[in-house]
Amino acid sequence: MNYQKAPSLEIQEWLNSEQDLNLEVLKGNIIVIHVFQMLCPGCVQHSIPQAKKIYERFKKDEVIVLGLHSVFEHHDAMNKIALQAFLHEYKVSFPVAIDFPLENDYLPTTMKKYDLQGTPTLIVIDKECHLRMKAFGFVDDLEVGLLIGTLQSENEANN
Amino acid sequence: MNYQKAPSLEIQEWLNSEQDLNLEVLKGNIIVIHVFQMLCPGCVQHSIPQAKKIYERFKKDEVIVLGLHSVFEHHDAMNKIALQAFLHEYKVSFPVAIDFPLENDYLPTTMKKYDLQGTPTLIVIDKECHLRMKAFGFVDDLEVGLLIGTLQSENEANN
Amino acid sequence: MNYQKAPSLEIQEWLNSEQDLNLEVLKGNIIVIHVFQMLCPGCVQHSIPQAKKIYERFKKDEVIVLGLHSVFEHHDAMNKIALQAFLHEYKVSFPVAIDFPLENDYLPTTMKKYDLQGTPTLIVIDKECHLRMKAFGFVDDLEVGLLIGTLQSENEANN
Amino acid sequence: MNYQKAPSLEIQEWLNSEQDLNLEVLKGNIIVIHVFQMLCPGCVQHSIPQAKKIYERFKKDEVIVLGLHSVFEHHDAMNKIALQAFLHEYKVSFPVAIDFPLENDYLPTTMKKYDLQGTPTLIVIDKECHLRMKAFGFVDDLEVGLLIGTLQSENEANN
Repeated sequence: MNYQKAPSLEIQEWLNSEQDLNLEVLKGNIIVIHVFQMLCPGCVQHSIPQAKKIYERFKKDEVIVLGLHSVFEHHDAMNKIALQAFLHEYKVSFPVAIDFPLENDYLPTTMKKYDLQGTPTLIVIDKECHLRMKAFGFVDDLEVGLLIGTLQSENEANN
Repeated sequence: MNYQKAPSLEIQEWLNSEQDLNLEVLKGNIIVIHVFQMLCPGCVQHSIPQAKKIYERFKKDEVIVLGLHSVFEHHDAMNKIALQAFLHEYKVSFPVAIDFPLENDYLPTTMKKYDLQGTPTLIVIDKECHLRMKAFGFVDDLEVGLLIGTLQSENEANN
Repeated sequence: MNYQKAPSLEIQEWLNSEQDLNLEVLKGNIIVIHVFQMLCPGCVQHSIPQAKKIYERFKKDEVIVLGLHSVFEHHDAMNKIALQAFLHEYKVSFPVAIDFPLENDYLPTTMKKYDLQGTPTLIVIDKECHLRMKAFGFVDDLEVGLLIGTLQSENEANN
Repeated sequence: MNYQKAPSLEIQEWLNSEQDLNLEVLKGNIIVIHVFQMLCPGCVQHSIPQAKKIYERFKKDEVIVLGLHSVFEHHDAMNKIALQAFLHEYKVSFPVAIDFPLENDYLPTTMKKYDLQGTPTLIVIDKECHLRMKAFGFVDDLEVGLLIGTLQSENEANN
C-alpha cells in the first residue's frame, strides 16, 4: 500500500524533553501523538489517560508517545505556564510539544498542516514516517493496540 | 445541637453571577460550596460533575450551589482568564467565586478562614448559616443527598 | 400529605436472615427494597452495588436494606439454588426474599401487588409503613440519600 | 520462537453455534477464547463486555471469538438452562462451549488440560493453532489489540 508521508511537526517549544524532537530523529520508531488542549474535557478524561497508559506500556520499547498541544481557542488561558502546571498536576511525563502559533490565525501551524478537525486527535506514524492513523475523537484502546501490533510486525517483516 | 456559624466568604470576584453573593444574602437556603482548583484532577473528575449534578437537581429549589476557586499552587496558571475558559469548556453555569488572594501567602483568604486542607473540599451550610459539612476529598452522592434531605427537613420542622 | 400504605410482602423464603421478615416487624425503620432478578444486567451492574453501599452505610442505623428476588422470566434458571450461589459470589449479605411464585402466572405475587413494571425497581417505605418511592430503573444515589434524609427527619419531627 | 500447540477443546455442548467447533476446523483463524463462569462477577463486569467488543470488531474478519463456560463451583446453579438464560439476558451471540464436566472432579476437562487457575481467563490461539496467551484475570484491551495485530501480521509474513 502507498501511505502518505507524515508532515513535519512545527513546534514552538518542547516540554518534558531535553532535546528538540522531530520525525527525522525519531524515524525507525512507531510514533503515537496525542493532539490535545489542556482545557478540552474529552482530552482530559480519555486521551491523556490513554496516552499515559501507552507510554507506560511501551516506554522501554520502540513506541514513542508524544503530546502535541494545539491550541485553537482560549489562547490566553492555555499558555506555556498553564500547560506546565497542567502536565505537573496530571503527572504527564512524556514529551509534549507546543504547536507553533500563527500570527493571524487562531489555528496553530502543525494543526493546519495535518488538517486536524479539533481535539482530541490521535495520530500514529509508522517506522518509515508514514501517516497511518489520524482520528478525531476518542479511539478505543483495542484499535490502538491493534495498529501498534500491526506496525511492529511490518517492521520485522521488512527488515 | 450547637453548630458553628459559617465564616463569611472573602471573594475577589464572582463569575456566572450578576451580583456579588454572600452568606447573609443567601440565608434561608441550603448552600453547597465546591472548593476547587481548575487544574486539580480530583476536582475535575469528581467534584465538578457532582456539583453540576446537584445544581441541575435543585436549581429551582432552595439549594444553592456555588463554586469557590481557592488557588494555593500554580497561581500564574490558574488566573481569572484561565478560570473563565475552564468554566466555559466544562459547561459550569452556577456562580463561581474567586477566593481572595493574600499578598504574602500562597493560601487565599477564605481557604484560611475555613482552615481547608486542600481541594476538592465540599462545604455545606444550613439555612441558619451554620457550617454542617467540611469534607476534604470526594464525598459520595449518597452522603450529600442524605445531608441535604436532613437540612431541608430541619427547616420545615423549625418554621 | 397522604401516602399509600405499603402492601404486605408475599414471600416464599428468606435468605440471609434467621427469621421471616415482614413490614409489621420492621415498622419504625426506613425500609429500602431492591427488587431484582439475578440475571438482569441492570440489576447486577447498578442496583446490587447500590444496595450494598446503602446497607454498609446504614447497617447500624435505622435503615433496613432488603432484596426482593421477583422472577418473571427464565424461571428455571433463577431458582433458589442459583440465587444462593449468586448471593455468595456477589457478596450480598443483607436479607433477600424470594417473591412468592403464582401457579398460573409468570409474575410473582408481591410484584403483582405492588404493580411493578420490571427489574430493577427501588422501593422505599417510611417508618409508618407508607410507600414513599417505587421507581423502575436506576435511581441516582443522590436521590436515594435525599429521600432517606427526609424520612429520617420526619420521624424525629413526629416524635 | 517455539510456541506450544494449543490442547484440543473438550466440549459437552455448543450454544450459539449450528455446528460443533474445534481447533482443527477453525485453524487458519486467530481464536480468542474467554473462559468464564456465568456467576463470576469479574467475568460479567469485564470479560463478557470485552469479548462482545472483540466479536463486534472482528466478526467479518479472521478473528474468531468463543466463550468457554468452565464451571468449577456452584455446579447446580450454573447448568445449561441457566447459561442459556444468561446468554440471552447479556446479549451474547458468539459461540459458547460448555466445558466437559468430569464425574469425580469439580474441575471440567478443558480447564484441566489447559491448567487454568480460575475465571476469567483469556486464551489466544494463533493461525497455526499455537497457544499465544493464557492470562488469568482481566487483560487490558490495549494488550489484546496488540496481540491480535501481531498475530494477523505473522500470518501475512508467513504466507
